[in-house]
Amino acid sequence: MRDACPVEAGQETQTGRLKAVERTTPQPKDFFIERDGVRYAGTHLIIDLWGAEHLDDIDLMERALRDAVDASGATLLHIHLHHFEPNGGVSGVAVLAESHISVHSWPERGYAAFDAFMCGDADPSLCVPVFEEAFSPERVEVQTHLRGRAL
Amino acid sequence: MRDACPVEAGQETQTGRLKAVERTTPQPKDFFIERDGVRYAGTHLIIDLWGAEHLDDIDLMERALRDAVDASGATLLHIHLHHFEPNGGVSGVAVLAESHISVHSWPERGYAAFDAFMCGDADPSLCVPVFEEAFSPERVEVQTHLRGRAL
Repeated sequence: MRDACPVEAGQETQTGRLKAVERTTPQPKDFFIERDGVRYAGTHLIIDLWGAEHLDDIDLMERALRDAVDASGATLLHIHLHHFEPNGGVSGVAVLAESHISVHSWPERGYAAFDAFMCGDADPSLCVPVFEEAFSPERVEVQTHLRGRAL
Repeated sequence: MRDACPVEAGQETQTGRLKAVERTTPQPKDFFIERDGVRYAGTHLIIDLWGAEHLDDIDLMERALRDAVDASGATLLHIHLHHFEPNGGVSGVAVLAESHISVHSWPERGYAAFDAFMCGDADPSLCVPVFEEAFSPERVEVQTHLRGRAL
């Protein structure tokens, strides 16, 4: 049985006012993953960058998020970034057909907290080199959760 | 030293088109947390609901996300939900002054994958009873990451 995972053709959505809800044409192409006998919904990476640069550059952050979506083979549905003062920190979320990528940065500490959750065939580990290239961290830590793992 | 954490007064933002970026008046009120001698940016909970109901109800999901933001003492900046067919799965993200809450649901499996990341004084653990009340899961699993923990 193919279990539908929320995926549709890759039209980026437009949002209006505070909330945006799209009811989409069904185009399921993904499903719960089964690898090495383990069945799960998707892979959720907790990615920490330390000693990183340019974490207050919201335009660079948007490019990095978009490049990470492309690198991992995911489909962007919606992206939102928010720039904070006085520290220049950036929060960003990219909603994907395959789940999401998020980031929150503390430029004054050189620290950025990313997470990348993707179901189906998209590979969130391919986000990591994109973030390394964009922000030149001294150290990167990645922790993995297999979300929806059947116990 | 107070390290600024991205937080501002609680004006919900309005988004225009695909991307929304707000440059906000500085009103820092939070900072890296230090508890029991451990210094970190915020608490990131990985929350799994199993045997849950109503996971295809996008209006209930939006109410649950908004109620979870309020219950945890966080400030909503932006919310976006997406409804998928044919399985009725919902993806949603709430961008907070204190970080974010996200959800991705698989109604056909009774499974919902939430995460709740909050810095400062907001308490993401207070989201969990809100989700339990809304979706009546048979089982809930919560895993905790202290993001930005100084090693």
